[in-house]
Amino acid sequence: MPLPSILLENAVAEFSRLPGIGRKTALRLVLHLLKQEEPVVANFAETVARMRKEIKFCSRCFNVSDGEHCAICTNTTRNQQMICVVETIRDVISIENTQQMNGTYHVLGGIISPLDGIGPEQLTIPGLIKRIEEGAVEELVFALNPNIQGDTTIYYIQKKIAHLNCKVTTIARGISFGGELEFADEMTLARSIAHRLPIQQYVK
Amino acid sequence: MPLPSILLENAVAEFSRLPGIGRKTALRLVLHLLKQEEPVVANFAETVARMRKEIKFCSRCFNVSDGEHCAICTNTTRNQQMICVVETIRDVISIENTQQMNGTYHVLGGIISPLDGIGPEQLTIPGLIKRIEEGAVEELVFALNPNIQGDTTIYYIQKKIAHLNCKVTTIARGISFGGELEFADEMTLARSIAHRLPIQQYVK
Repeated sequence: MPLPSILLENAVAEFSRLPGIGRKTALRLVLHLLKQEEPVVANFAETVARMRKEIKFCSRCFNVSDGEHCAICTNTTRNQQMICVVETIRDVISIENTQQMNGTYHVLGGIISPLDGIGPEQLTIPGLIKRIEEGAVEELVFALNPNIQGDTTIYYIQKKIAHLNCKVTTIARGISFGGELEFADEMTLARSIAHRLPIQQYVK
Repeated sequence: MPLPSILLENAVAEFSRLPGIGRKTALRLVLHLLKQEEPVVANFAETVARMRKEIKFCSRCFNVSDGEHCAICTNTTRNQQMICVVETIRDVISIENTQQMNGTYHVLGGIISPLDGIGPEQLTIPGLIKRIEEGAVEELVFALNPNIQGDTTIYYIQKKIAHLNCKVTTIARGISFGGELEFADEMTLARSIAHRLPIQQYVK
């Protein structure tokens, strides 16, 4: 059914385009905004538009940034010799939340996927290789999603930097914390057995 | 954890203020917008701001409208002698979706609730009474939520227009379509028995 106002209809259509927001939820959000004072809504709109317009990407690691280089790349207390390779900015945020990574990042902006026509040139892989060639990078930690595309990407980058003296690792695959062996898929269980750890290392 | 950019942080904070949107969902929406082209996001922001700025409310029924009077109030094929009284614009949309109401509406903008300091003056009740006093209104259909505040509001308006020759009805309460008697609350079941219908009327 069409809504009683074209302005309302347009706003609902805009919200419906966001991921996970259907027409009903969109209508709820729009009616909420309609109840707010005009400056509140103007501020909402301006903040969103400004975010997209003014946000910068770090020229080194391609993470979002307020300046030329991001806060992680300019932080001298972090290990600048370690690069954690991730697919998206969201992954940086997830890993930062664990507080376990004290190195820097490199956001690929996607993953090699020939079927979707995404090759290394569409990603920030040349920039990553340049970083390794130029600087004293000691370790490259891959934190990519465990699938064919992820493995292809790791394989490609590893080949490209094979001649350089850089340790390459990947985050561990295994049974999730709190998970149950019974419900784990065979592949995960098999890998977690193959890559079993000495108990001293596990409790460290 | 703080996000790597203040612009991103602000946008996430704005989205988090919407109902049913937590920080995680807000981040997902913002990162989605970040991936879109700049004009797409600018258009999103402008549409939302414009909706709030330019939207009008029908001066007769207080429904949203693109002009002085809404499309329902100006539609001569609808029964202008029947007014359906609802709490919010959302209720108008819900009832319109049923295609069962061929009259007009009156959006109260809330409900009488002395505990929350909401009296008839904070609502559009004076406007409703004026409409009834002025025009040839034959039937007033209350479609308010079934609770104490709804009943208070019905009682108040009914008293105010008791001297006028206007039929007052309320939408039926009863067992939901597809509901099960076993799980219905006593109040609903009791009312649906008290207001039972001749079967000829039911199948009409």
